[in-house]
Amino acid sequence: MIVVMRPGATAEDVKRVEYRLEELGFKTHPIYGQEKTVIGAIGDKKSLSSEAIITLPGVEKIVPIMRPYKRVGRELKQEKTIVQVGDVAIGGDEIVVMAGPCAVESMEQMLEAAQAVKKAGARILRGGAFKPRTSPYAFQGLEDEGLAYLVEARAVTGLPIVTEAVDPRDVALVARYADMILIGARNMQNFRLLKEVGMTGKPILLKRGLAATIEEWLMAAEYIMDAGNSQIVLCERGIRTYETATRNTVDLSAVPVVQENSHLPVIVDPSHGTGLWKLVTPMARAAVAVGADGLMVEVHPSPATALCDGPQSLNPENFAALMEEVEKIAIGMGKRVRDNRN
Amino acid sequence: MIVVMRPGATAEDVKRVEYRLEELGFKTHPIYGQEKTVIGAIGDKKSLSSEAIITLPGVEKIVPIMRPYKRVGRELKQEKTIVQVGDVAIGGDEIVVMAGPCAVESMEQMLEAAQAVKKAGARILRGGAFKPRTSPYAFQGLEDEGLAYLVEARAVTGLPIVTEAVDPRDVALVARYADMILIGARNMQNFRLLKEVGMTGKPILLKRGLAATIEEWLMAAEYIMDAGNSQIVLCERGIRTYETATRNTVDLSAVPVVQENSHLPVIVDPSHGTGLWKLVTPMARAAVAVGADGLMVEVHPSPATALCDGPQSLNPENFAALMEEVEKIAIGMGKRVRDNRN
Amino acid sequence: MIVVMRPGATAEDVKRVEYRLEELGFKTHPIYGQEKTVIGAIGDKKSLSSEAIITLPGVEKIVPIMRPYKRVGRELKQEKTIVQVGDVAIGGDEIVVMAGPCAVESMEQMLEAAQAVKKAGARILRGGAFKPRTSPYAFQGLEDEGLAYLVEARAVTGLPIVTEAVDPRDVALVARYADMILIGARNMQNFRLLKEVGMTGKPILLKRGLAATIEEWLMAAEYIMDAGNSQIVLCERGIRTYETATRNTVDLSAVPVVQENSHLPVIVDPSHGTGLWKLVTPMARAAVAVGADGLMVEVHPSPATALCDGPQSLNPENFAALMEEVEKIAIGMGKRVRDNRN
Amino acid sequence: MIVVMRPGATAEDVKRVEYRLEELGFKTHPIYGQEKTVIGAIGDKKSLSSEAIITLPGVEKIVPIMRPYKRVGRELKQEKTIVQVGDVAIGGDEIVVMAGPCAVESMEQMLEAAQAVKKAGARILRGGAFKPRTSPYAFQGLEDEGLAYLVEARAVTGLPIVTEAVDPRDVALVARYADMILIGARNMQNFRLLKEVGMTGKPILLKRGLAATIEEWLMAAEYIMDAGNSQIVLCERGIRTYETATRNTVDLSAVPVVQENSHLPVIVDPSHGTGLWKLVTPMARAAVAVGADGLMVEVHPSPATALCDGPQSLNPENFAALMEEVEKIAIGMGKRVRDNRN
Repeated sequence: MIVVMRPGATAEDVKRVEYRLEELGFKTHPIYGQEKTVIGAIGDKKSLSSEAIITLPGVEKIVPIMRPYKRVGRELKQEKTIVQVGDVAIGGDEIVVMAGPCAVESMEQMLEAAQAVKKAGARILRGGAFKPRTSPYAFQGLEDEGLAYLVEARAVTGLPIVTEAVDPRDVALVARYADMILIGARNMQNFRLLKEVGMTGKPILLKRGLAATIEEWLMAAEYIMDAGNSQIVLCERGIRTYETATRNTVDLSAVPVVQENSHLPVIVDPSHGTGLWKLVTPMARAAVAVGADGLMVEVHPSPATALCDGPQSLNPENFAALMEEVEKIAIGMGKRVRDNRN
Repeated sequence: MIVVMRPGATAEDVKRVEYRLEELGFKTHPIYGQEKTVIGAIGDKKSLSSEAIITLPGVEKIVPIMRPYKRVGRELKQEKTIVQVGDVAIGGDEIVVMAGPCAVESMEQMLEAAQAVKKAGARILRGGAFKPRTSPYAFQGLEDEGLAYLVEARAVTGLPIVTEAVDPRDVALVARYADMILIGARNMQNFRLLKEVGMTGKPILLKRGLAATIEEWLMAAEYIMDAGNSQIVLCERGIRTYETATRNTVDLSAVPVVQENSHLPVIVDPSHGTGLWKLVTPMARAAVAVGADGLMVEVHPSPATALCDGPQSLNPENFAALMEEVEKIAIGMGKRVRDNRN
Repeated sequence: MIVVMRPGATAEDVKRVEYRLEELGFKTHPIYGQEKTVIGAIGDKKSLSSEAIITLPGVEKIVPIMRPYKRVGRELKQEKTIVQVGDVAIGGDEIVVMAGPCAVESMEQMLEAAQAVKKAGARILRGGAFKPRTSPYAFQGLEDEGLAYLVEARAVTGLPIVTEAVDPRDVALVARYADMILIGARNMQNFRLLKEVGMTGKPILLKRGLAATIEEWLMAAEYIMDAGNSQIVLCERGIRTYETATRNTVDLSAVPVVQENSHLPVIVDPSHGTGLWKLVTPMARAAVAVGADGLMVEVHPSPATALCDGPQSLNPENFAALMEEVEKIAIGMGKRVRDNRN
Repeated sequence: MIVVMRPGATAEDVKRVEYRLEELGFKTHPIYGQEKTVIGAIGDKKSLSSEAIITLPGVEKIVPIMRPYKRVGRELKQEKTIVQVGDVAIGGDEIVVMAGPCAVESMEQMLEAAQAVKKAGARILRGGAFKPRTSPYAFQGLEDEGLAYLVEARAVTGLPIVTEAVDPRDVALVARYADMILIGARNMQNFRLLKEVGMTGKPILLKRGLAATIEEWLMAAEYIMDAGNSQIVLCERGIRTYETATRNTVDLSAVPVVQENSHLPVIVDPSHGTGLWKLVTPMARAAVAVGADGLMVEVHPSPATALCDGPQSLNPENFAALMEEVEKIAIGMGKRVRDNRN
């Protein structure tokens, strides 16, 4: 931590800060510049309590030096984490595509979607049984019934399933049926939910919050790891900006930033990221080219009748075309997609 | 709902949209312009399912006409809601100040803070027992013990208490002790938590999410009202922007926007809103001048040793000064603050 | 400047950075922590060239310590600047209200607006002769003719006039007629224009760019001061955020932040800041309460027929009411508005 | 245009709006819903003046239907524009890479950079002679001398040159020497500059403003086309968001959005977009995969001594590696890069 003193700070002000830092367990190293004094503080105390130094007289600002995360960082673990979901490995040379409808609506819809995405080469099936919706009057999901349909779709296709948990009280239920648990963007800082899924041992797909910094997102993953679960895949799904042409703005540079700072795999969701089905395929290609470990794509047998997120869902033909295009980019990256073909 | 067709849309495209809208229960009114056709659709169906119309050929965009909220809106209830917390009424001519530490740390700290804020004129005591923190290594609150200290502070000062619930499983416990339940910014779209506090019948203080639109914020309140609880106070606490000089950017124009669209009272939290104690008093004055129904201010007996949010906390003397300044603005607004004086 | 080295940085990496810093004229002070080394660098070299240090091996980040501005800062000049526009002093105990139409449309409109705002207590008359417009098909201003009408309105009312310059080639013309030159938000970083108005010696009203940080805004003022002109008033006019309920989000906390860091006066424009006339008066009250030195308000004799910004313009009656309300808040602040009454 | 009336609007309110719209030359089509009335208004009048309708009693909001741009839109011109810069065509099957240093610093630096980027396959040489800088104390460019070095580098390498104009008074000079004129992000809404370059007939590279919507960006291009110049290439260079891990957030979805709405070619600048050289190559790959017509990359012979933007510049070896990687993605897109090889 570096404490920057104001230009007019007195020798006494500097002393007071040094004294307080030492009281908190830091060693101090003042550097006297022409206009300002800065104090280097070395120690492993929690940064939070020491932030209060900013309220002492003469202090201008505090500059943290250490990253706030430990377990998710590259510093303690150099090699990349491979997350295993059933027989699918995320984080290696295969670009893993997860696909399926936003919400589970019926057995028929789920089976139709599952077979279509499998045929096109998806490796994991998605579908929401518990839906967090902005409006209390919107379809909230089939809940237990939806889980049953997902399980049936898995039995038929052999695809592992990923589905969302929205309440700590449902985690045990979701963990019983799902192969991977999704934490949605709105719950990225629902810390109780993070702790709960951290205790399941199941692979977790952690979406970035809609206005979360990359650091906050990694801290959310740190909660899950701190609860004992290191099987985490991160998912960039667009952030909120002033631009209204798209539902969100996909921050693809987050992929290499995460990869430099963390050993966890990271995938991209171009469906929520753009909100418009026509943009899903171009952004899926870009996600693969930037180096993402996978994709999550909304596919519905009939987007025009979908109960949720119809405007951003692909129909099966468009999804098959997406897979064709994505494969060509994967080849350019020296990776592969759809290895279950043949 | 208005459906805007693309310039090149054919008569058949228009027919298809009309047909689908009628199927969904809407009456349609096409208007043929020189370059574009637009279709007015009248009906009270849920907007979500009809959004899928955008995937039909020839459709450019959908423009919703109805507001998505009902119960929180001025349209069904013209008169302003007064929320009663113990003997304090929020939403009337008194500007209600809630104050206290970010986190409950000890009985001594809590009592000292409670007596200081009461003396200066605060009407409700705040203090966090359950703390949502970005880092799993930061102080997470004293939980049950913290609630006990709050109850003691209430007994000593007579001030009703407001404290946060972060997990649906804790709501019953918090509701047993608190006079008002706080839903924090990170949980604004934790819909299960909203439903749970909606069932308690306790007054709720609902903070705006850190990147929530005003409409999403009102929709979160709608969840609580839909669960049967209309005793809701909204709290603007700053939104996330690109500016880094402050922790958040307080959106004071949200206060009159909420007041025009909703009957619920709205207060401002300049402590979280700015993150810097020096800015708390000027922004508290501005909040009163813009027409807020109250303030929430972090006050700590010794900000430099606070376990949470020290940099944005006022000490008791500064809080007393804030109250003096705020009172002068309240007079200019024809309102009062600190009516428990004398 | 502080150079933070990565955890794995070698002794050689640190040496290389120290060597390069010394070459650039800095004295270096390394501090060796358990996980990271940081290097304090003292010197008064331009920060820009030294930023390139970040490309050296082992460097994680650079933390600037010195503020980038000099002349606009409080450090070199403690006392607040008073900017004199005709007989009006901005930056003292009077809250100076500038008002008038967005665009000069006709002699009649200009005289009617000028007399109305004078009667209500405005001290400076605004009106745009050169208009920067998002669309090339929108009304672009009356240019020279508009300046002539402004001059006539000044002659009739005695109010000094403020009007915008949008092109370095027009600055001499505008400076000949105007009492104060406005630099609009879109031109805040039009550095050639800043230099040109810096050479006129006229008082300058510098609006904040629509996505400018406070630091960038102060740096724009630094350009004007560096060109020899210290008669600058800053104007907060709302920043761009994700919220769509208002045209922009007024960042009122920018007022005390500017006042702490700079000696220049700062005013608020609630008309552009909100884009909605109903919000202008509440935000004007808040601006005064937060400590602004003045206001800029759009007033049009007939907003419904305005060629520019009608939706955010007040009619004369609403402006008179605004002045009444603002005066009450000014009294609460120990200031005055409308001292030309009597 | 659609005028949405408030729920309580009277028949008289609706009449008044209809009357005013008709006065403005619109035909009106009211649609009476259960709670709200909406009025469709057909006509080709400028939208700006009609916006003022919002100030009439009973009006809730105005929804524009027509896009504000004409000449840049796909509606009037279906086929994509090919912009010719010397012998290089932008907008076809070749992905055109423009590369070179941020600022022209010396003849030696410019020649070294030019030869390096040519060797690696760049088709156009960039270099700034006039530099808009946030600080008046930062290097402002070599101006005329810089142009001379660019001309020399063109003579030696045969690469056409693109360089920035920042002042309407310099446009003639820049147009005399440059093959393509760059309008920087800060000048995207410097409308006088846009008009001036619109009159040169030279190809223009128009960067997106740092907080500009896609629509505002297209409107800036409309200014240039309206001045008679249709040789425009758009350049996405990152937008301002709350995320601080990168200098800006590259909005790659802007590429397909522009391509759907406009016939103009669009390229991406991953150097300014990210601000960090390590992210330039991944984002360049992603830009090609999303469908961009080209790239603009900062390359400096020695980034650690660059006078401008060193942290985001590639050295020649890294740029050569970027070109190798980008070529593989281009192949996956059925396009080519570096066709001047062999």
